Amino acid sequence: MLSSIWGKHIKISVFGESHGSCIGVVIDGLPPGIKLDLDKISTEMARRRPGQDIYSTQRKEADRVEIVSGFFNGYTTGSPLCGIIKNTDKRSVDYDDIKEIMRPGHADYTAFVRYNGFADYRGGGHFSGRLTAPVVFAGAVANQYLEQKGITIGTHLLRIGKIQDEPMDPVNITAQQLINFRNMRFPVFSAETAEKMKEEINSARMDCDSVGGILETAILNLPAGLGSPMFDSVESRMAAFVFSIPAVKGIEFGSGFNLASMRGSEANDEFYISEDNGRKIPRTKTNHAGGINGGITNGMPVIFRTCIKPTSTISKPQHTVNIRTMEETEHVFKGRHDPCIAVRAVPVIDAAAALVVMDLFLEHGEQVG
Amino acid sequence: MLSSIWGKHIKISVFGESHGSCIGVVIDGLPPGIKLDLDKISTEMARRRPGQDIYSTQRKEADRVEIVSGFFNGYTTGSPLCGIIKNTDKRSVDYDDIKEIMRPGHADYTAFVRYNGFADYRGGGHFSGRLTAPVVFAGAVANQYLEQKGITIGTHLLRIGKIQDEPMDPVNITAQQLINFRNMRFPVFSAETAEKMKEEINSARMDCDSVGGILETAILNLPAGLGSPMFDSVESRMAAFVFSIPAVKGIEFGSGFNLASMRGSEANDEFYISEDNGRKIPRTKTNHAGGINGGITNGMPVIFRTCIKPTSTISKPQHTVNIRTMEETEHVFKGRHDPCIAVRAVPVIDAAAALVVMDLFLEHGEQVG
Amino acid sequence: MLSSIWGKHIKISVFGESHGSCIGVVIDGLPPGIKLDLDKISTEMARRRPGQDIYSTQRKEADRVEIVSGFFNGYTTGSPLCGIIKNTDKRSVDYDDIKEIMRPGHADYTAFVRYNGFADYRGGGHFSGRLTAPVVFAGAVANQYLEQKGITIGTHLLRIGKIQDEPMDPVNITAQQLINFRNMRFPVFSAETAEKMKEEINSARMDCDSVGGILETAILNLPAGLGSPMFDSVESRMAAFVFSIPAVKGIEFGSGFNLASMRGSEANDEFYISEDNGRKIPRTKTNHAGGINGGITNGMPVIFRTCIKPTSTISKPQHTVNIRTMEETEHVFKGRHDPCIAVRAVPVIDAAAALVVMDLFLEHGEQVG
Amino acid sequence: MLSSIWGKHIKISVFGESHGSCIGVVIDGLPPGIKLDLDKISTEMARRRPGQDIYSTQRKEADRVEIVSGFFNGYTTGSPLCGIIKNTDKRSVDYDDIKEIMRPGHADYTAFVRYNGFADYRGGGHFSGRLTAPVVFAGAVANQYLEQKGITIGTHLLRIGKIQDEPMDPVNITAQQLINFRNMRFPVFSAETAEKMKEEINSARMDCDSVGGILETAILNLPAGLGSPMFDSVESRMAAFVFSIPAVKGIEFGSGFNLASMRGSEANDEFYISEDNGRKIPRTKTNHAGGINGGITNGMPVIFRTCIKPTSTISKPQHTVNIRTMEETEHVFKGRHDPCIAVRAVPVIDAAAALVVMDLFLEHGEQVG
Repeated sequence: MLSSIWGKHIKISVFGESHGSCIGVVIDGLPPGIKLDLDKISTEMARRRPGQDIYSTQRKEADRVEIVSGFFNGYTTGSPLCGIIKNTDKRSVDYDDIKEIMRPGHADYTAFVRYNGFADYRGGGHFSGRLTAPVVFAGAVANQYLEQKGITIGTHLLRIGKIQDEPMDPVNITAQQLINFRNMRFPVFSAETAEKMKEEINSARMDCDSVGGILETAILNLPAGLGSPMFDSVESRMAAFVFSIPAVKGIEFGSGFNLASMRGSEANDEFYISEDNGRKIPRTKTNHAGGINGGITNGMPVIFRTCIKPTSTISKPQHTVNIRTMEETEHVFKGRHDPCIAVRAVPVIDAAAALVVMDLFLEHGEQVG
Repeated sequence: MLSSIWGKHIKISVFGESHGSCIGVVIDGLPPGIKLDLDKISTEMARRRPGQDIYSTQRKEADRVEIVSGFFNGYTTGSPLCGIIKNTDKRSVDYDDIKEIMRPGHADYTAFVRYNGFADYRGGGHFSGRLTAPVVFAGAVANQYLEQKGITIGTHLLRIGKIQDEPMDPVNITAQQLINFRNMRFPVFSAETAEKMKEEINSARMDCDSVGGILETAILNLPAGLGSPMFDSVESRMAAFVFSIPAVKGIEFGSGFNLASMRGSEANDEFYISEDNGRKIPRTKTNHAGGINGGITNGMPVIFRTCIKPTSTISKPQHTVNIRTMEETEHVFKGRHDPCIAVRAVPVIDAAAALVVMDLFLEHGEQVG
Repeated sequence: MLSSIWGKHIKISVFGESHGSCIGVVIDGLPPGIKLDLDKISTEMARRRPGQDIYSTQRKEADRVEIVSGFFNGYTTGSPLCGIIKNTDKRSVDYDDIKEIMRPGHADYTAFVRYNGFADYRGGGHFSGRLTAPVVFAGAVANQYLEQKGITIGTHLLRIGKIQDEPMDPVNITAQQLINFRNMRFPVFSAETAEKMKEEINSARMDCDSVGGILETAILNLPAGLGSPMFDSVESRMAAFVFSIPAVKGIEFGSGFNLASMRGSEANDEFYISEDNGRKIPRTKTNHAGGINGGITNGMPVIFRTCIKPTSTISKPQHTVNIRTMEETEHVFKGRHDPCIAVRAVPVIDAAAALVVMDLFLEHGEQVG
Repeated sequence: MLSSIWGKHIKISVFGESHGSCIGVVIDGLPPGIKLDLDKISTEMARRRPGQDIYSTQRKEADRVEIVSGFFNGYTTGSPLCGIIKNTDKRSVDYDDIKEIMRPGHADYTAFVRYNGFADYRGGGHFSGRLTAPVVFAGAVANQYLEQKGITIGTHLLRIGKIQDEPMDPVNITAQQLINFRNMRFPVFSAETAEKMKEEINSARMDCDSVGGILETAILNLPAGLGSPMFDSVESRMAAFVFSIPAVKGIEFGSGFNLASMRGSEANDEFYISEDNGRKIPRTKTNHAGGINGGITNGMPVIFRTCIKPTSTISKPQHTVNIRTMEETEHVFKGRHDPCIAVRAVPVIDAAAALVVMDLFLEHGEQVG
């Protein structure tokens, strides 16, 4: 159990269900004195908010966060900061059938077994993608901490279905490019690709179907020396968080799975001396390692890619079982959904990255104020 | 810090350096009454042991484990079990140069920054792949616990460099196939592929180079209902451990990155009713999810693939920097190494999987004895 | 940091400040299927509620808990259960002076240093005794779990100021006695003592002063075998929680500090064989150990005593310092307060004990439903 | 389970049994660059070592620690530091009877239940006071870290049986007094009291009996601002560790249980302005709080008292049960033991305090080197 608490130096404790009165998060361990710009937080929430166009679910939620503790006179106090988000547009009636009929690809069956039939099944309950809203809020708080340190995080849609964007340049990717991604609803390098991706999603939607994707994320300006070997490697921590996001089924760092067919002489990133304001620092010519050696940042951009499966909720008839009668059945499931959840996963991955990086910084006792 | 302790319900605490007097592990939280077959443990240690053929490093280590606590009259006592492995074949003189000259692809530079120059650099110190020996020992203990529950874990070399083995059948993979893999030094489905892989490795070795690979792992007979949503998902826990193993740069579950180009109607695993000794249980026709929905096992085989980068140590000259003089240099590094570390990573991944699965079981209060 | 999260198998995450909009708690790791009687929870909250007579602060709070997650159709779901309590009767204006003038005995100065001046000082902020309300709520949930196992917990006022109640009989204390204590506002063995204690408190109140006390707690019907040696001893866990309650300055188990002047032959609890429905079990004739040997319950009543210092807030002038001007000053602090906080600490200690015992049970994988 | 791992920012993992081949500890999370004086460590080990006079057990152990990892060229490396201590003077034959006959006051019965009969019972196994040797070693390492920060920790025997030493002055206790205590086998203020205490112990010994005691500890020179409210209070952390030491049954901070009969006006420590090298800092005139307000240090000496029960092992005949036959019996137990374990508990409490304080410092990211 204890599945909904994360972190070492900051901890977030996420609560709520898709169709309960509200959802939220307690952030414990925040340093005192972080100045929070609430407008920036709203902007982050808006990036994930549903109901904004045909590429996302039609559920309409304001996703306004009420901060009820840990925040005083514009600054974090150092006490737990709790943010609460009301659920307003619930249609629980849509979910009466899934009480017994298990949706393929969803957690209905596994939750039924795990929680002995006591889980709140409506809209997926605590398993719902809606629970990423508090994560995005927590990430927005973390991001303001990181901005003060000059860290920039950004993600683009590397792939939607069959459509591929050009990959990031792992050595020369710029903060401005990442900031642009954060400001786009379809963060891709080329506008043309964006249009093709939209077509891909719309085509799935018209087929009562859904489609998957790959996200590529970069974290810029991290100092060398964050993280640890073994169980606290940057990869371990990042992967543990990222796999907590619904629909994620794979992650790779740097050149990732392509490293399997490479030779060491090709994969090793050779060092050279770079000068930064007269200060000599080692950097690498290439970045196959994704900015991490031995679990520790080396000062190059941290690069990772996340695979997002197609949304499990589709409107097509599917073969499945009724858990009460233990009979097979053919069913068309109702309920609003995103035809491609990968798009709305972008700010969630950014939030995950921000929280992990903040946790890495706090390990070294960084304090604000 | 605290990088070398892992686990929730059992914890392992790994200690030692490549060129110290010994390495070892304390396993805390083991249930009392697990009967340990020491021969089986030796067999597991032998799978990872170096110096056995030209495909691995020439460092010769017996890797005999002395259990100094927590084991009494053939059974675990419930107190911490500590296993110690002597380091015998050290050649620290090989490593004098890396005190200052940073090996590309290695953690020399990041460890230098992280530990302010105090790390034991000889042979990579605590970052050495040698530290996977205690992990294999701990995994062997966990595996004996799991065998009593009918769980089988096995891994094969899906790819070495350009050579690909056939993938596992994610629905019908058998325990016998996995056991066969555990008994092979080159665990692949086809003997012909094994030969080609050996040639690939030998070719890299002759070029003073190294080569990477992909491992594919299956866990059979897990009951539905293990794991949790969000931060304690099976994927989160498995990934966190697997990324602690040196050279791992990617992990994917089920159909993994291929899910990006699939439609939901294709990716969703439809349920049907299976009968097992008269007991009806839901199973899925396909297994794109890799046996995990919403972070929780669904009773199908858990399948994941791990990418292993080519060994960073190569004998070719490489461009790098001297951290003391802050000058660039061309260097040929000495030291024995594996031309393809993916091969010896197989039992380490098996051990990681065993420890994670045991931890999942203990969450539910399973006790032996 | 991370000071407000507690637990191993269940975790509680407490948030809020005395003068914020609300306070609350997230309980993570609750087993699914615990039936919750909300009236019983209200009864527990009422035990701690302020403003009910002259022996407690005049702040009036309904302390009604809104459960916003983790509870469905009358049962816990297994997902995090969040309970929220509104703050209604705030008089923040009373606290303007303590922004700079440090109240003796309070955390004003230490919080100022710890949080760099960013803490919410109003009414003590997150340090306020008001934060024990969510703890009592969480304890009430735990208590319903324990009642199903036949466990009873109760506490009486062993001492208030100079007035002493008779101690519990550590061997023969009964569940009914403990239940009686839970139903009394002044839980003592003798009504006469209660009157004297009230006089003691009233006398302190009339003097613009406060007074301390000692609570004695028993936990009945615990099976032998809960807890662990060393760092997870029952004493370690109980003490860690109990010292998180404001004003607690000491704890002792069994015969406690009196053991110092005893001989081993006197302090050792000799075993005998007891028969319980035909089942033979070892019990002890005496209970100097307070039901715990080697950190593990032995089946006898667990007995401990907690010392509660006099309320720090008093209405007398006190000598102190202004943290801004760094000058000494004489000050009379405003703000409502309890003349003897020990009385309202009783349900908080009961709640702490319930949470610790539930955590001990869950360690063994006990599950409801 | 997991009983033998402690800590947040450093973690210690203790292993071994009284009659196994060795015992030891892994210290994870040590900052790199702490210079270790091995002679000082030996001196600490000698303070706890058995067999030195008639006031302690006659078991002879060199208690030499072999550091096998995490230490390189005289400094900690930042990797786990493992220290191993051989068991040399074992007489396991003494313990054949306790396999079945439960010693009163000991953990024989509770360990039997807890570990289903699989625990190593010889000499108490993992429950043995011998396991405090690795704790003293870890504390000695922590102490060298603290000495560099000017922190001094010391403990005296406040009481042995009926004999009482004078208490520390909680405001004016000096570092020199504490250092003197560390250099004495019978750390008391008055030599005369020491003689009386020895007589008290010897008298118990001659009676085949044992006697208890109270230790009083001070920690000097802590800055204000260490610790946290609620579950991470200094009291919570210190108590949790101290109760892990065998035979401890009570702890109190500052004026402790005496606060129960005090008034707030008496118990509150009034602040004044002190000047330290021209720097003004608030201090308190009295120290009833034991240097801790709201769980956080206030810069005054941290003072606590620990109650140690009389050694459970005595040579008198005792009434008890045979766990196999479930019959009552009268038994005289063999085995060497301390007539007053409080004396040898002194360096263990010092070690506990050092580890807790180091953990508090590391929370703020203090780093050496």
